[in-house]
Amino acid sequence: MTDNHLMWENLGMDVKTHDILCEVLPQAFGDVYLTQENRPNGMDYFNMVVGDIHGLRPAELIKLQEEEGKKVVGTFCIHVPDEVVFAAGGIATGLCSGSQFWVPGGEKVLPTATCPLIKASLGAHFDKTCPFFRICDLFVGETTCDGKKKAWEILSEDAEMYIMDIPQMKRPQDFKKWEEEIRNYITKIEEITGNKVTEESLKEAIVISNNKRKALQRLNNFRKLDNIPISGRDVLLIHQIAFYDDPTRFTEMVNKLCDELDKRKEEEVSVFEKGTKRILLTGTPLSIPNWKLHQIIENSGGAVICEEMCTGIRYCEALVDESGENIDEMVENLAERYLGHINCACFTPNKARIDDIIRLAKEYKADGVIDVNLKFCNIYDTEGYFVEKAMAEAGIPCIGIETDYTDEDAEQLKTRIGAFIEMLS
Amino acid sequence: MTDNHLMWENLGMDVKTHDILCEVLPQAFGDVYLTQENRPNGMDYFNMVVGDIHGLRPAELIKLQEEEGKKVVGTFCIHVPDEVVFAAGGIATGLCSGSQFWVPGGEKVLPTATCPLIKASLGAHFDKTCPFFRICDLFVGETTCDGKKKAWEILSEDAEMYIMDIPQMKRPQDFKKWEEEIRNYITKIEEITGNKVTEESLKEAIVISNNKRKALQRLNNFRKLDNIPISGRDVLLIHQIAFYDDPTRFTEMVNKLCDELDKRKEEEVSVFEKGTKRILLTGTPLSIPNWKLHQIIENSGGAVICEEMCTGIRYCEALVDESGENIDEMVENLAERYLGHINCACFTPNKARIDDIIRLAKEYKADGVIDVNLKFCNIYDTEGYFVEKAMAEAGIPCIGIETDYTDEDAEQLKTRIGAFIEMLS
Ligand code: SF4
Ligand code: SF4
Ligand code: SF4
Ligand code: SF4
Repeated sequence: MTDNHLMWENLGMDVKTHDILCEVLPQAFGDVYLTQENRPNGMDYFNMVVGDIHGLRPAELIKLQEEEGKKVVGTFCIHVPDEVVFAAGGIATGLCSGSQFWVPGGEKVLPTATCPLIKASLGAHFDKTCPFFRICDLFVGETTCDGKKKAWEILSEDAEMYIMDIPQMKRPQDFKKWEEEIRNYITKIEEITGNKVTEESLKEAIVISNNKRKALQRLNNFRKLDNIPISGRDVLLIHQIAFYDDPTRFTEMVNKLCDELDKRKEEEVSVFEKGTKRILLTGTPLSIPNWKLHQIIENSGGAVICEEMCTGIRYCEALVDESGENIDEMVENLAERYLGHINCACFTPNKARIDDIIRLAKEYKADGVIDVNLKFCNIYDTEGYFVEKAMAEAGIPCIGIETDYTDEDAEQLKTRIGAFIEMLS
Repeated sequence: MTDNHLMWENLGMDVKTHDILCEVLPQAFGDVYLTQENRPNGMDYFNMVVGDIHGLRPAELIKLQEEEGKKVVGTFCIHVPDEVVFAAGGIATGLCSGSQFWVPGGEKVLPTATCPLIKASLGAHFDKTCPFFRICDLFVGETTCDGKKKAWEILSEDAEMYIMDIPQMKRPQDFKKWEEEIRNYITKIEEITGNKVTEESLKEAIVISNNKRKALQRLNNFRKLDNIPISGRDVLLIHQIAFYDDPTRFTEMVNKLCDELDKRKEEEVSVFEKGTKRILLTGTPLSIPNWKLHQIIENSGGAVICEEMCTGIRYCEALVDESGENIDEMVENLAERYLGHINCACFTPNKARIDDIIRLAKEYKADGVIDVNLKFCNIYDTEGYFVEKAMAEAGIPCIGIETDYTDEDAEQLKTRIGAFIEMLS
């Protein structure tokens, strides 16, 4: 038995079923990632992390739990501020699941007409085939979309959960409400960790998270170049890893990679051929290991140059104002960032997202926009009406695509995306 | 040209398309309703109202607008308090649409994977085939479910809309938030109507709405009898009409019907044969003219004896506390009633609904429960997990049924519902 197997057994996982996942994942990763030419050396770290995704970081988390008494808090949405957990000496980790492997398990308790992200999350939990779900001391849900809001009730039958009620609008009173939710969240996290969130610790956590965001922004900026020194799928992978890696180490590694990319920039190195079409993706999140669209686009004469997604620019673009001097001011700044600057389709209205897409399309010199919807995500699907309208008005070519975690639509997607890229000129 | 046609043309309706609806509706109503035997005479009023549904009440509303300068406010959810509108001298009317006729129009702007109620509402508006949508001076939406929340953005491109942000939970702070929403709603309605909401007018409106609720409760109580003097479909129709009829006249008519039913009670008259199985329906609303399930159940040896639905007990069971002496107290009482006592699946958690179903099943002596879900309503569908579990634990036979506004599944539903009723003994 490997060390990993021992750990998984100790976590009470269904190791046998999990072994099936362990067999297919390296193959999938190899196909999408290791076939690329001229990858930056700085990707080695991220390859390693994802290569042992259910071993390396889980072992680290368990060690921190056992040796330092740290608590691990699992989250499902970028509206939930990591800073609170880190400020209380805990560890925050993202739990959104991106593999079809977990979907049938989710469908045992959820309607089929639920988005695959939610089904996979509940499947990963109830099937006991994800170590992160086994490790977490607390799950934090939110009321962003119907599917998640109701799924937490089922998850909470089997795990300790805390729910944050996100306002569905962004009026002045909603910011006040979100501040109150953050304050209550601090209290809950203080209880769980047994540690106080202090002015110093919260300030430090804000700086650490901002540094992570700045590193990711630095990385994204390379994609604005005419010679793009890194592939879209590599940048996606890095954003996916951002959700669960140690933030300080992660920031270092991203910056190290960016140093290498700086050299590529000077030397005008591109991983794409001349004439490759620049594609901006917008829509629902692409959780690890959901690399399907990037692979199709980048194998069809396209380069993904920006993701207006939670696994992309929406995660890192806005910083938390660091000037807060006391908890109240810092909470206000967190609310401002986490409510004001995340333009998720869960809000009504959500015009700022449309503005973001148009702005980003210009900044990243997009040739075309693909609006991606995870099947049964009603909020992004409905908002697609406005996305397509605004793109038509702005003269930016755009198609809407609906997909799930299966590979059944791969051929159809290749045809549609291929035709779309062909059309761009 | 009839008077109705003239009115519809003046409203800018698509009269030609609307004529198709005018042709099929009487037939549908006749099939479901006029084939019943031994109906109470008190149903005559409701037959008349629904027989000229797009003529009678619309003409009345237009007259009130033109002659008295009254404003008509259209709503889509029982969380929005009618009292506010009536207290400002306006008229509130429900707009939820229950016919497949409007669905294709909705699908032009909304995802197919949206519940038919929402698609029909937007279709009725954009196709200009419902006079109520043409008459309203303001539409009031809410953030209850994803589908509605996002659909309002599309509707608001073509109509004046006001959105109330309903809390997604029911903690003490959420009641405060809902009070604030009601206060802001009062301000909005005062603006629209040009009238102040006063202590007297709000108190009066609360009493008027409570009287309507009491009349409906009185009506529902007859369904607890062993000899049920009125059919389920008739009671459903009355609840549907409650959403748009003049409240005072409606209350009178319901009470008049109840006087007749009192006599039937004395004489132990039942409209059902002995041994008819008593079915409680729970789930999503059945908007007018959605009578499909009642017809199937009551033609298959069942009697619908209670609807734990917004077009049922959820609309009328709880009263607003009438003891409020000033606006603040009355707003608090409205919030208590409209947030605390509506157990819609939009809330998390929503355990109180499960308790309601079990309580109602006992009070109404249900032999079985049918959990009804409108296709693509994720919140009720997910909550079905808890409904079925709780019914199994309580030993109450239960099936879950998913349907939409088409007649395509009618045969399949007949088979399933028939088998379910057969099984009850
Ligand atoms: S898409 Fe919206 S709900 Fe989903 S993770 Fe992003 S912000 Fe949260
Ligand atoms: S993709 Fe849509 S439905 Fe799925 S979790 Fe995110 S917001 Fe909810
Ligand atoms: S089911 Fe819920 S959202 Fe729909 S009308 Fe009823 S209370 Fe409102
Ligand atoms: S039935 Fe469900 S999806 Fe449809 S409007 Fe009501 S709550 Fe929303």
